[in-house]
Amino acid sequence: MIIDLRSDTVTKPTKGMLDAMMSAKVGDDVFDEDPTVKILEDRLANLFGKPRALFFPSGSMANQTAIKLHTNPGEQVICDKYAHIYNYEAGGVSFNSGVSCNLVDGHRGMFTAKQAKDAINPDAFYYSQTSLIAIENTTNKGGGACWDFNELINIKSLCNNHKLGYHLDGARLWNALEEKRETELDYGKLFNTISVCLSKGLGCPIGSVLIGDDDIMQQSVRLRKVFGGNMRQVGYLAAAGLYALDHHRVRLKDDHSKAKDIGEVLAQHTAIKTVEPIETNIVIFELAEDVDEQQFFEILHNKGIKLIGMGGGKLRIVTHLDYTNQMHDYLLTTLKTLSL
Amino acid sequence: MIIDLRSDTVTKPTKGMLDAMMSAKVGDDVFDEDPTVKILEDRLANLFGKPRALFFPSGSMANQTAIKLHTNPGEQVICDKYAHIYNYEAGGVSFNSGVSCNLVDGHRGMFTAKQAKDAINPDAFYYSQTSLIAIENTTNKGGGACWDFNELINIKSLCNNHKLGYHLDGARLWNALEEKRETELDYGKLFNTISVCLSKGLGCPIGSVLIGDDDIMQQSVRLRKVFGGNMRQVGYLAAAGLYALDHHRVRLKDDHSKAKDIGEVLAQHTAIKTVEPIETNIVIFELAEDVDEQQFFEILHNKGIKLIGMGGGKLRIVTHLDYTNQMHDYLLTTLKTLSL
Amino acid sequence: MIIDLRSDTVTKPTKGMLDAMMSAKVGDDVFDEDPTVKILEDRLANLFGKPRALFFPSGSMANQTAIKLHTNPGEQVICDKYAHIYNYEAGGVSFNSGVSCNLVDGHRGMFTAKQAKDAINPDAFYYSQTSLIAIENTTNKGGGACWDFNELINIKSLCNNHKLGYHLDGARLWNALEEKRETELDYGKLFNTISVCLSKGLGCPIGSVLIGDDDIMQQSVRLRKVFGGNMRQVGYLAAAGLYALDHHRVRLKDDHSKAKDIGEVLAQHTAIKTVEPIETNIVIFELAEDVDEQQFFEILHNKGIKLIGMGGGKLRIVTHLDYTNQMHDYLLTTLKTLSL
Amino acid sequence: MIIDLRSDTVTKPTKGMLDAMMSAKVGDDVFDEDPTVKILEDRLANLFGKPRALFFPSGSMANQTAIKLHTNPGEQVICDKYAHIYNYEAGGVSFNSGVSCNLVDGHRGMFTAKQAKDAINPDAFYYSQTSLIAIENTTNKGGGACWDFNELINIKSLCNNHKLGYHLDGARLWNALEEKRETELDYGKLFNTISVCLSKGLGCPIGSVLIGDDDIMQQSVRLRKVFGGNMRQVGYLAAAGLYALDHHRVRLKDDHSKAKDIGEVLAQHTAIKTVEPIETNIVIFELAEDVDEQQFFEILHNKGIKLIGMGGGKLRIVTHLDYTNQMHDYLLTTLKTLSL
Repeated sequence: MIIDLRSDTVTKPTKGMLDAMMSAKVGDDVFDEDPTVKILEDRLANLFGKPRALFFPSGSMANQTAIKLHTNPGEQVICDKYAHIYNYEAGGVSFNSGVSCNLVDGHRGMFTAKQAKDAINPDAFYYSQTSLIAIENTTNKGGGACWDFNELINIKSLCNNHKLGYHLDGARLWNALEEKRETELDYGKLFNTISVCLSKGLGCPIGSVLIGDDDIMQQSVRLRKVFGGNMRQVGYLAAAGLYALDHHRVRLKDDHSKAKDIGEVLAQHTAIKTVEPIETNIVIFELAEDVDEQQFFEILHNKGIKLIGMGGGKLRIVTHLDYTNQMHDYLLTTLKTLSL
Repeated sequence: MIIDLRSDTVTKPTKGMLDAMMSAKVGDDVFDEDPTVKILEDRLANLFGKPRALFFPSGSMANQTAIKLHTNPGEQVICDKYAHIYNYEAGGVSFNSGVSCNLVDGHRGMFTAKQAKDAINPDAFYYSQTSLIAIENTTNKGGGACWDFNELINIKSLCNNHKLGYHLDGARLWNALEEKRETELDYGKLFNTISVCLSKGLGCPIGSVLIGDDDIMQQSVRLRKVFGGNMRQVGYLAAAGLYALDHHRVRLKDDHSKAKDIGEVLAQHTAIKTVEPIETNIVIFELAEDVDEQQFFEILHNKGIKLIGMGGGKLRIVTHLDYTNQMHDYLLTTLKTLSL
Repeated sequence: MIIDLRSDTVTKPTKGMLDAMMSAKVGDDVFDEDPTVKILEDRLANLFGKPRALFFPSGSMANQTAIKLHTNPGEQVICDKYAHIYNYEAGGVSFNSGVSCNLVDGHRGMFTAKQAKDAINPDAFYYSQTSLIAIENTTNKGGGACWDFNELINIKSLCNNHKLGYHLDGARLWNALEEKRETELDYGKLFNTISVCLSKGLGCPIGSVLIGDDDIMQQSVRLRKVFGGNMRQVGYLAAAGLYALDHHRVRLKDDHSKAKDIGEVLAQHTAIKTVEPIETNIVIFELAEDVDEQQFFEILHNKGIKLIGMGGGKLRIVTHLDYTNQMHDYLLTTLKTLSL
Repeated sequence: MIIDLRSDTVTKPTKGMLDAMMSAKVGDDVFDEDPTVKILEDRLANLFGKPRALFFPSGSMANQTAIKLHTNPGEQVICDKYAHIYNYEAGGVSFNSGVSCNLVDGHRGMFTAKQAKDAINPDAFYYSQTSLIAIENTTNKGGGACWDFNELINIKSLCNNHKLGYHLDGARLWNALEEKRETELDYGKLFNTISVCLSKGLGCPIGSVLIGDDDIMQQSVRLRKVFGGNMRQVGYLAAAGLYALDHHRVRLKDDHSKAKDIGEVLAQHTAIKTVEPIETNIVIFELAEDVDEQQFFEILHNKGIKLIGMGGGKLRIVTHLDYTNQMHDYLLTTLKTLSL
């Protein structure tokens, strides 16, 4: 038994999802004729109360497209120092859009409206012009932390006052919605653009969707083409997304509950220095100083358990659809009895 | 019965292909762990005699990545005035790579080594530096024309002498190989990078592959990530590709034969001014001057036949896997008896 | 005696110009406090009837800034195949703005509104979006040819109808104005942005100015900073420009008259195949087929006469402020008696 | 009497410098024929023990060119959070080169080799690739602080080990050399590229020079052209530089001594909270909390004294060539007796 907790992206489609995929009605989406992708896009647009939604092969492309929709070369995006768009998209923000990130020194990937305000550049020609604030919810590097919705409202006011765009990297937004009892409509009201990922907690093999306002999404299909994200019979992938919305959204709370179980066990282990607060499906923890990281990985690996390092001595566990109750029992037992 | 001859991209997977997709072994390809995509990449690398192959969600992204691999911002790519990379990739060459195209005034999308040589800029700082020659075979806007292989060899010498990269946009290369009795190895020996498309003649729903040399492909995965083309459980799409290589390559000659049949009928019709020579699965023709293009489209449309305009009065028909013998008989009969 | 006819950029300031430079009032222009540059900018803005003018260290930077002001990455500029911005600005159009040129096959660097219209891309996401038409007057590679003003009006209508920007590369506009008895105001009414060069016919050492509308020039200072064109005590250079506007504009007709003299002599020489029509201060001619270009250059060089090759067998002579009557007599005599 | 201490860029040429400028031998530098600019470039190359030097219209362009010479789009530059290239070049790093800055949280604009090492991204495709470390000496936003040369050597080792480029923004390097008794050769041995500014402490109206190794400078002239920095009769500006090297370098110590005098007076004033350590010609200080910044500016302005705000409550005074002994006495007296 291999227990792969490196990421919630490692899940494989369930039997039901695969059946849905293979019976999908498809068409050539470059000719705008794939019926299933249209149903998915419409459904997500409606969920968020927005006029437009567009399917993408990855969350990175959805984010990169959004950033380009909001900015011109030379401008600046305000985001947290932990932001996925800055850290894990291969420098795409500067490559694709010619813009830079003004990194806010936030807490677990989240910052305050006050911090965002201080990060807006003065209006002088020798500064880069601030044009966008980008939020990530839940935060990946921040350990699945969920933003306080009131702070998001405060930042929205700031955007309005300074005529800034407001983008949400919602790769794991559904985890936040489940945990905070918030709705897609709440977020649709705040943000100009929102990217959501179908291949993380929802368990699809491939796919993200960018949802947004009409004016700002005008060039989205062209930009997707520029990046090479326009695909043909996309309905197979979209069908997985529709299935996941029906069947895999509610169960995210199981992932959260399991993550909290794991955190509790880790917190009691002498080999673990600290476990960050757990709100959703991500557990980030640090080893005690006398524990060798490489050895720790190997011992777990030999017991069939895979996790991942985040740099700077932080380790990450992510629970997901393919992490069963049986695996959970085994993991907890293993961790409790782990001797290093 | 709808006969869709707008493009060979409109095909839907056969039962066999769908079965192959459904039973594919998959993994998270961002972690480099999808076994089926690896088999496909290895198989294509071997076919072309190259060390590296990489799966892409579209031919545009494979081409755009190749162009970036070969160039630095400000440099220039020599290609035909009909080239797909210049005409139909949404300005991506300049957006993504910051380079321009020096368009050769070729014949049906093909040019000579002499013409290419004349297009190389002198070595002075105020010129854009020429760094790449890009070929398209077969040519799309050129009506599926196939390059003379000897001319490709001559252009290769030019590239060697001037230290230029040599890229092949092989979206429909398999049509050329079938028609000219050439092999993938022949092309692998000439070009530094080759993009091939699985979703045109081969009939897959999604997917292209970029094949190339080790040194030049070094940054290919990073660039694919920059553009957002790194996907997760890609094996479903790769399985279609493997199936297509086994079952749909040989039958391309049927598409060619049908295209020639159509061309012959068109050439005899009084409503048609000219039909371009037909070598593969594309038929490009012009209407007689007294025939209204819009009306022509409508009459055919009412008979269930779809084709496409290419601009400048040119119309295009493309034969493919989903264009059956029955449809063919119906189309030929319809065209013969068409009164305008 | 060296007679340098390679370009009108080789002139050195006259005594009067140098005195004007030396006594200029200057300030730190990055703080917007150089009084002389302000006077020059205001004067040129007024001349063209435009609200804004901005000094640049080169015509290339003025053009590159204008192109960026008019376009977004991925878009397309319509210009002649001879255009300086495409041929002689080191690929800057794609490097700086991420846009491409759609080259019109014009006559001596000039094209018709009909040709421009045909070059506008259809409104589909896979095309590059056309956003600017750029004109060069006089045309450099076209041999100093002057546009027909009525055609420029027709192209203006096209720009209005298709919401395209309209830029004039007026590096040698004053030559056209002098020859065609047109005014700066005429051009100010047509174009959104106009670059003029002080270091060509006007004889200044350094400097170009971009003149334009308020809305479109809004980011011009920031873009100049991005490129690194913001300079400190610029008044020394601006003073030369002011002097030149007072003293060197009217005399351009002498340059034209001399160019025509040279053309007449060349046309009668057996070593010369063709001389292009001469309208201003540029003479472009081709050698007879039995004359060796290198030898021709050397013979003239030995007689103290420098000219320049334009590629493709074309040679160029440019008359200017430092080309005296004495030199002119010597040149004509030399050419008449030249034996090869 | 106006005492302008906003920057050392506000100086105007002395009589001697102006004479040197106006008697300069000049030529068309685009044709590579300006003798004076060649002398200046050669002299600076020799001073730093490097093979190549190139004149630029601004320090920003010299820096931007260097960054482009060292990087490819998508890559990352390590620099201090105070770095001029990140803060005050209008977002040019991302606009021109498509790269981002990884900001080190240094001390007064300076950081350690250890901090730089931690900022190098791991070698994985989803990270931006680190390719350059950029140093600024003296630091502008850091208050004219001078780097410890041993730390620069340590960072050089890091660059060697990780194959990173090493660039010095030496806009005020001569101030550091004067203060630390270091030489240009010391710096030439460490860095691949060095930009120096002639229009700051040295008192020239316009001009910076980029000095570097042959291999890395290969495309420098082309890049200068791309940005539009190639100028014609540049000798007038270069002559000022040559004069300044002869006459204005040694006297920088006077600026430093005056800055220290000012700092001492400020430190004793009740209206001033803190004065940062003063090493060269920059004084950065903060007002006591009960002092209104706007009022402070106005009172000094009414006494003919200009200084500048740096954001975040910091004020800056810069001493320079045009700040005379008489002004100095007046300023010290004024500050001592200043009542708010």
